[in-house]
Amino acid sequence: MKTVITYGTFDLFHIGHLRLLERAKALGDRLVVAGSSDEFNEGKGKKTIIPYSDRAAIVQAIKCVDLVIPEHTWEQKQNDIREHNVCTFVMGADWKGKFDELKDLCEVVYLPRTDGVSSTELKQSMAMIGQIARQFEQ
Amino acid sequence: MKTVITYGTFDLFHIGHLRLLERAKALGDRLVVAGSSDEFNEGKGKKTIIPYSDRAAIVQAIKCVDLVIPEHTWEQKQNDIREHNVCTFVMGADWKGKFDELKDLCEVVYLPRTDGVSSTELKQSMAMIGQIARQFEQ
Repeated sequence: MKTVITYGTFDLFHIGHLRLLERAKALGDRLVVAGSSDEFNEGKGKKTIIPYSDRAAIVQAIKCVDLVIPEHTWEQKQNDIREHNVCTFVMGADWKGKFDELKDLCEVVYLPRTDGVSSTELKQSMAMIGQIARQFEQ
Repeated sequence: MKTVITYGTFDLFHIGHLRLLERAKALGDRLVVAGSSDEFNEGKGKKTIIPYSDRAAIVQAIKCVDLVIPEHTWEQKQNDIREHNVCTFVMGADWKGKFDELKDLCEVVYLPRTDGVSSTELKQSMAMIGQIARQFEQ
């Protein structure tokens, strides 16, 4: 049984999140996902649209996800890896090199971004969401 | 084996979608979800943020969902019910009474809205999304 772990916020769950989770799971047999708590995000000056309880419930409902745990601090990763008997720590390539110190504990993999979820497309979508949102504000 | 079917767009997948799917599945053993195609939505003057392929992939990835099929027309429901051997047709209570003609073919259930996903909260969230979206537009 090879356990894989990844970390993220998973706000406004989208296809890029799903593909990352599926590719992470494909590296092992069991996938643990640590979702950033609202308090942890606030400490980083980051405000999510969707509260932690809902973000966690959606990620937990994804077929390839076995367990969701909350992420409260930057430092908890070492403990999580030990506690959940993790073989492989996975993050998106935008974090490349940032967690290399964990290589003493387990394999560390940075997955390249998937095609089709480009930042340009995301910006176009966000602009469209903005238009819709303004209708609600009126 | 009792098959349940429901229909929806599932744009920007959120906790209300998930809870509806879970409650639909709880009425039987197998859940078929018909997702509105982009062409069907356009015919209704409705534009989604997320394209059909991504909306369908996310719904198909949800644990309680067994099969996703595309919805192309209002009239296909009778065929879907026969083809997938459906026992129970489920929609949210905002559609109450709208599909009673299907009672000749199967059970028809309108599920009340879940607590905690109120339109007020949704509007607040959409206003917040609007603020974020404007940052992308600048």
